Amino acid sequence: MPENDKQSLSMVTCTAPVNIAVIKYWGKRDEDLILPINSSLSVTLHQDQLKTTTTVACSRNFQQDRIWLNGKEEDISNPRLQSCLQEIRRFSRKRRNTGDSTSDVSGVSHKVHICSVNNFPTAAGLASSASGYACLVYTLSQLFGVESEQLSAVARQGSGSACRSLYGGFVQWKLGEQLDGKDSLAEQVESESYWPELRVLTLVVSAEQKSVGSTSGMHASVETSQLLKYRADVVVPSRMEEMIRVIRERDFPAFGELTMKDSNQFHAICLDTYPPIFYLNNTSHRIISLVHRYNQYYGETRVAYTFDAGPNAVIYTLQDHLSEFVQVVRHFFPPEVSGEEFVKGLPVCSADLSEELKRDINMEPTPKGIRYIISTKAGPGPCVVKDPNHHLLGADGLPKKTV
Amino acid sequence: MPENDKQSLSMVTCTAPVNIAVIKYWGKRDEDLILPINSSLSVTLHQDQLKTTTTVACSRNFQQDRIWLNGKEEDISNPRLQSCLQEIRRFSRKRRNTGDSTSDVSGVSHKVHICSVNNFPTAAGLASSASGYACLVYTLSQLFGVESEQLSAVARQGSGSACRSLYGGFVQWKLGEQLDGKDSLAEQVESESYWPELRVLTLVVSAEQKSVGSTSGMHASVETSQLLKYRADVVVPSRMEEMIRVIRERDFPAFGELTMKDSNQFHAICLDTYPPIFYLNNTSHRIISLVHRYNQYYGETRVAYTFDAGPNAVIYTLQDHLSEFVQVVRHFFPPEVSGEEFVKGLPVCSADLSEELKRDINMEPTPKGIRYIISTKAGPGPCVVKDPNHHLLGADGLPKKTV
Repeated sequence: MPENDKQSLSMVTCTAPVNIAVIKYWGKRDEDLILPINSSLSVTLHQDQLKTTTTVACSRNFQQDRIWLNGKEEDISNPRLQSCLQEIRRFSRKRRNTGDSTSDVSGVSHKVHICSVNNFPTAAGLASSASGYACLVYTLSQLFGVESEQLSAVARQGSGSACRSLYGGFVQWKLGEQLDGKDSLAEQVESESYWPELRVLTLVVSAEQKSVGSTSGMHASVETSQLLKYRADVVVPSRMEEMIRVIRERDFPAFGELTMKDSNQFHAICLDTYPPIFYLNNTSHRIISLVHRYNQYYGETRVAYTFDAGPNAVIYTLQDHLSEFVQVVRHFFPPEVSGEEFVKGLPVCSADLSEELKRDINMEPTPKGIRYIISTKAGPGPCVVKDPNHHLLGADGLPKKTV
Repeated sequence: MPENDKQSLSMVTCTAPVNIAVIKYWGKRDEDLILPINSSLSVTLHQDQLKTTTTVACSRNFQQDRIWLNGKEEDISNPRLQSCLQEIRRFSRKRRNTGDSTSDVSGVSHKVHICSVNNFPTAAGLASSASGYACLVYTLSQLFGVESEQLSAVARQGSGSACRSLYGGFVQWKLGEQLDGKDSLAEQVESESYWPELRVLTLVVSAEQKSVGSTSGMHASVETSQLLKYRADVVVPSRMEEMIRVIRERDFPAFGELTMKDSNQFHAICLDTYPPIFYLNNTSHRIISLVHRYNQYYGETRVAYTFDAGPNAVIYTLQDHLSEFVQVVRHFFPPEVSGEEFVKGLPVCSADLSEELKRDINMEPTPKGIRYIISTKAGPGPCVVKDPNHHLLGADGLPKKTV
């Protein structure tokens, strides 16, 4: 590669986290701008366990915008990708025109090559669109020198929940009022260090069939569920206030109960959709039962579940109860003996279960109902990766062979 | 038995039907009087397939009220049984006091013996409380010579949905406004002969576990579901009007769609209850999928499902589509080969399925997911059984040995 070509290549690599909503986003009031019918609130998960990594390069030598996702080139003409690219370029030009920069050092007029990978399998059923679009928009903003509180509005136009992955800790996405969506933004409620005892487990369930996608699912709900409007207009506003309050008070029983109720109401709306949408399967139902029986045994909410558009459970609990609850899961969902490790991610100590607890829970074990657990906690927002060895694109602007 | 004892024994035997709601009753505003938070509407099923038979005898020689259900003596002190007995006796005395009768020919001051049997197994998962209390109240009214439009208010105090089993065909239960419940009554919308092409299939699903009972379930929903009040106050009133209209117009596609939507909304409310209640299992979900795919194939609603407080489906369809749909069920839920007959009740012709239909439905078959089908149609209300050979109690006032 000639020296002048090398110099013309700018490259940035960033990572972004997954987030799991405790007040659910379900339903758009504007499909193009991705404006929601209600506010939502999520916990950002730690990137040591779950993250997207994205490298963006720009060069005057690139003939066209290109994108590789998890090793495979994808169609860049995807309207949502185009929205994000156009919006970031617009911000960058605006910044240049207002004199923050005197020449096109940002390369905003050049074509980009994008390469993105997740450190978790798609089979984990975790929506990768949130971390994916957050990472894309954050990386582009770094490359083009864009700093804006509107960044989350750009990510939102890639995938609604992506806006919440631009911040760490506890994050709300305010629905906003403006028609152009400029005030439909994510905002940090508290940082990841605010509630260090909070722990998160993803229970990856063996799914028999592919679920309805969330975009078409929420479209169908808006069109057909009579209960959804009431949820969005009446139920969620007061739940948002309560959720922010109980997080600030680090009140786990209240946080857990409200989280479970909102997950259940979201799935209720899916059932009220016509034709109905089922994301929970029998294993999901059993996990729900197990959590309620476990809490019932102790007479307080020590563990809470939440489910997104699929059968996998995400469990919130406190450090003190973690090892026992994992042992409870292992007992009632005995894993395959010679399979991969059952608990991945943050280590979980082993614990003994009392016979009384097992007897009180009184459920038939479901062998292999849960494939594995990812153990994690709340974490920070997107980060820039400084080490150039971690770029996913080579000096030729193409994905490195190891990707 | 001495002659004078024989003469003192009065006995009546009646039968009463099961009903299946198409606009669901879920939630009480008064737990003692069993007053609902919304009106509901049901189809009365034909007694040739599903019925309760009850004999009531009264005699001055009986020492106490007694009851035998399906061959086993039960506790007569059950508050709901007591409500029905007391109310009917009150009506009978009122009638006597207003001069309709000059002496106690009705035997209202005597103790009663009650014997009741269902012609369907409890395992069929059909709520027997509706036909059971309707039959009890109707039989008592015949024995004591009570004629009243308030009879359904008495049955209602045994089991809410029992009031609808006092009429044949299409029956609404108006929620009423009065505090004493006197206007919370059932009323026939159209008789069973109004829509003779309508057919009903009960798909008896293999249940893994006992469901939450409907009394405690609806209590929990009233206490905890934020969506239920909106359903009762806003959604159901307009659905009642629409349901009555589409029945009068014999508009099956509209009837079927509204029936499915209301079943789904009832189960959505169960999920919005805390802790959530699940009545549908994976097989129920598959039946729902199958119905939507079948309708999708024909581009019109030919078949509709509804589910009560359990996993069994009740299917409404028209005579013309019955045999094909039964064959579709048999194909996607292959029954046990050497088991009992798969289709019980009204005969269903065999039908061939096109390869195109099977391919288009595109579902994995679920062997033994459905245990059997009961084929029936709309039918009349309670009947008096004239033949004394059919009395369930002998001349000694005790259950016959054959019961």
